[in-house]
Amino acid sequence: MSTLRIALLGCGNVGSQVARILLEDADALAARTGARLELTGIAVRSIDAPRDVDLPRELFTTDAEALVESADIVIELMGGIEPARSLILRSIEHGATVVSGNKALLALDGPTLYEKADAAKVQLSYEAAVAGAIPILRPIRDSLSGDRITRVLGIVNGTTNFILDQMDTTGAQFDDALAEAQRLGYAEADPTADVGGHDAAAKGAILASLSFHTRFALDDVYCEGITQVTAADIAAAKDAGFVIKLLAIAELLPRDDADGAGAEGVSVRVHPTLLPRDHPLAAVHGAFNAVFIEAENAGELMFYGQGAGGTPTASAVLGDVVSAARRMVLGGPGRTETTTGHVPSMSIDAVRTSYSIGLDVADQPGVLARIAQLFAEQGVSIETLRQSIHPAGDPGQATAEIRIVTHRATEAALAATVEQIQHLAVINSVTSVLRVEGA
Amino acid sequence: MSTLRIALLGCGNVGSQVARILLEDADALAARTGARLELTGIAVRSIDAPRDVDLPRELFTTDAEALVESADIVIELMGGIEPARSLILRSIEHGATVVSGNKALLALDGPTLYEKADAAKVQLSYEAAVAGAIPILRPIRDSLSGDRITRVLGIVNGTTNFILDQMDTTGAQFDDALAEAQRLGYAEADPTADVGGHDAAAKGAILASLSFHTRFALDDVYCEGITQVTAADIAAAKDAGFVIKLLAIAELLPRDDADGAGAEGVSVRVHPTLLPRDHPLAAVHGAFNAVFIEAENAGELMFYGQGAGGTPTASAVLGDVVSAARRMVLGGPGRTETTTGHVPSMSIDAVRTSYSIGLDVADQPGVLARIAQLFAEQGVSIETLRQSIHPAGDPGQATAEIRIVTHRATEAALAATVEQIQHLAVINSVTSVLRVEGA
Repeated sequence: MSTLRIALLGCGNVGSQVARILLEDADALAARTGARLELTGIAVRSIDAPRDVDLPRELFTTDAEALVESADIVIELMGGIEPARSLILRSIEHGATVVSGNKALLALDGPTLYEKADAAKVQLSYEAAVAGAIPILRPIRDSLSGDRITRVLGIVNGTTNFILDQMDTTGAQFDDALAEAQRLGYAEADPTADVGGHDAAAKGAILASLSFHTRFALDDVYCEGITQVTAADIAAAKDAGFVIKLLAIAELLPRDDADGAGAEGVSVRVHPTLLPRDHPLAAVHGAFNAVFIEAENAGELMFYGQGAGGTPTASAVLGDVVSAARRMVLGGPGRTETTTGHVPSMSIDAVRTSYSIGLDVADQPGVLARIAQLFAEQGVSIETLRQSIHPAGDPGQATAEIRIVTHRATEAALAATVEQIQHLAVINSVTSVLRVEGA
Repeated sequence: MSTLRIALLGCGNVGSQVARILLEDADALAARTGARLELTGIAVRSIDAPRDVDLPRELFTTDAEALVESADIVIELMGGIEPARSLILRSIEHGATVVSGNKALLALDGPTLYEKADAAKVQLSYEAAVAGAIPILRPIRDSLSGDRITRVLGIVNGTTNFILDQMDTTGAQFDDALAEAQRLGYAEADPTADVGGHDAAAKGAILASLSFHTRFALDDVYCEGITQVTAADIAAAKDAGFVIKLLAIAELLPRDDADGAGAEGVSVRVHPTLLPRDHPLAAVHGAFNAVFIEAENAGELMFYGQGAGGTPTASAVLGDVVSAARRMVLGGPGRTETTTGHVPSMSIDAVRTSYSIGLDVADQPGVLARIAQLFAEQGVSIETLRQSIHPAGDPGQATAEIRIVTHRATEAALAATVEQIQHLAVINSVTSVLRVEGA
């Protein structure tokens, strides 16, 4: 049996589990691969740093470049842009197969890496970069290769799903749910990348690129986080049969602007979204992730599992390693993701969505008529309107809360409507504006 | 650009949609594959039979053997054992790649076909044979290849899921829900293969073979259908926080019998199963399918989608065709599923499950104690016991309904307990015996 030399870059949460599995399950992996997978070294910044897993000290090195040069397969789990990017490029130059879980790098500079790998005919795979343990990239690339994906809705950030699920279950405010997530280790001390939607946006760009055979970058993704979502929003959504999830959405849309008559574009966006409670994504609780796909022939598909954590993510990394190694054993050529298409990215303004709008209004005759008239003037059609009265001590001071769900309209028209409505004298404030999907 | 010649065997529900997509989407498929996929002919029994899709008459032939001999890729969608088996073997001999959706044939004689394909170094793939459009075989084979699957729970028959879901939603009896399923086209006029669990058993054998790298045949699968499930069973389950689903289960278990001390075996079985209502599989409604996988590192995963229907299943077939064609274009060797392991199949008697048992008993003092004593004698531990009294006209004639959920015990011990309990004088009848999972 031949041996494949494996270099591991990074030994954090995921890397240490990958090393453990490579060492502990060596026989089973060899049986499934047809070659022994020999871990030749682990590149780290500091050899004496504490690790989750007890690993042989002689495996550690601080010389990542030397390690990469003698490897058949390089597993990059350092995260961040540099030196990860340079080391991957060097690996490709040396003809090594690359497995990475680095979503930030792939979202930022994926196209360059794919092109270099293609040109060198080496394999570059990155199942672990999106939705942790869930096999999602391979099904999109291979299983759905004879179909046409029209829409992808993903819960791809466990931290925000945990927080929103807590708020939905317990009625907690955002700050309290975040604190609870931090206490349980689901959120970092600085939660900005998660709650701001940036982590989900990077995964959205990768999902969109694969689904629509076109390379989308992080800049193409409209991004809104969950810090503005209140307990009142969640309660009102629940009351109306909805749940609020942070979704990464990539969808194929007709372009009816002057340039693109009859053509199609892709909108990639991340924002808090109202989903009907009977939608399969609504049943995704805690820190779990799921990706819901609509395809022309396959219809609706969903992939569900753990989106983070050292061991689950290590499973995805090892799946890539074994699959790549099998191909190397069989002597087949390398192949990376195919993104042959050129569907243009569409700005959020061109997207047709539906809004849930919360309004705090004076409880006076004619208020509803005034609001309805304004929506009509803007060409935005109201689907449902619910009003609840808050009685006040002084007569004439009572206020009412109104929740409106609109039919689909362009983001531009919806934004203009919200802008206009704030200027109505009868409106105390616009308390929330959230998008709705799947209804 | 090169051309790959495609022979299609069978033009039913799925075959006609595969032909349509190959013709309609030829340009997109060529772009994704790197070769033109030319449909050279469709083998049918009768050229003039009515079809779902309007296809060029000149494509049809009754000479399947001649068609196969000139093909690069053979798509077998005839179903049944012969002539499908002979035509697949002939295709392999000619070096053609084979894509099949024939679960009956694969469950019955898969091992022979895989061996022939391996020996001839041609690809044999069959994503469409299990769970229709859901990409499940490829994720198990590739994405989880570096992990260790410990359990697979599948809702893999849409007809029975539709019927059970109807019963759960509307309170209908089995016969009425079956009639409704037939009216809507979800069940055939002769529903035996579905409601008897045989279709699910064939898919269970295929799932188990892939998950545990060992070849399991239909004979290895214990099979119980849903015809005995009553509205009362469903209502009692609902009351206790469960839903009843027909599951195909494949799980790795320790073998503590004399032969296999310390070793492991696989139990493959199909039976109606109580699942907690918050289990992800409980949210799978109507004719949808889903496969829930537990793996050592990945944790819990679920794959959800349409399990049947011409167009969704055609999507899975085309995914196999494009993936195989890409590999042919790149010049890589063929590879079929790897089933290199030898985990023994375990009889249902050796499996440890938990039972939900319904009893109709006389409402007399001491009945509960007598029942509890009998369970204790058999070494079966009771987890929950609920009693509801049915008052009668005559005093002393009142009966009670008891529902017991046991802790896990061997099937043998549970079966013995149920057998014994029927002989107790205070028991009018054992009204139901159902297994519980996921609690």
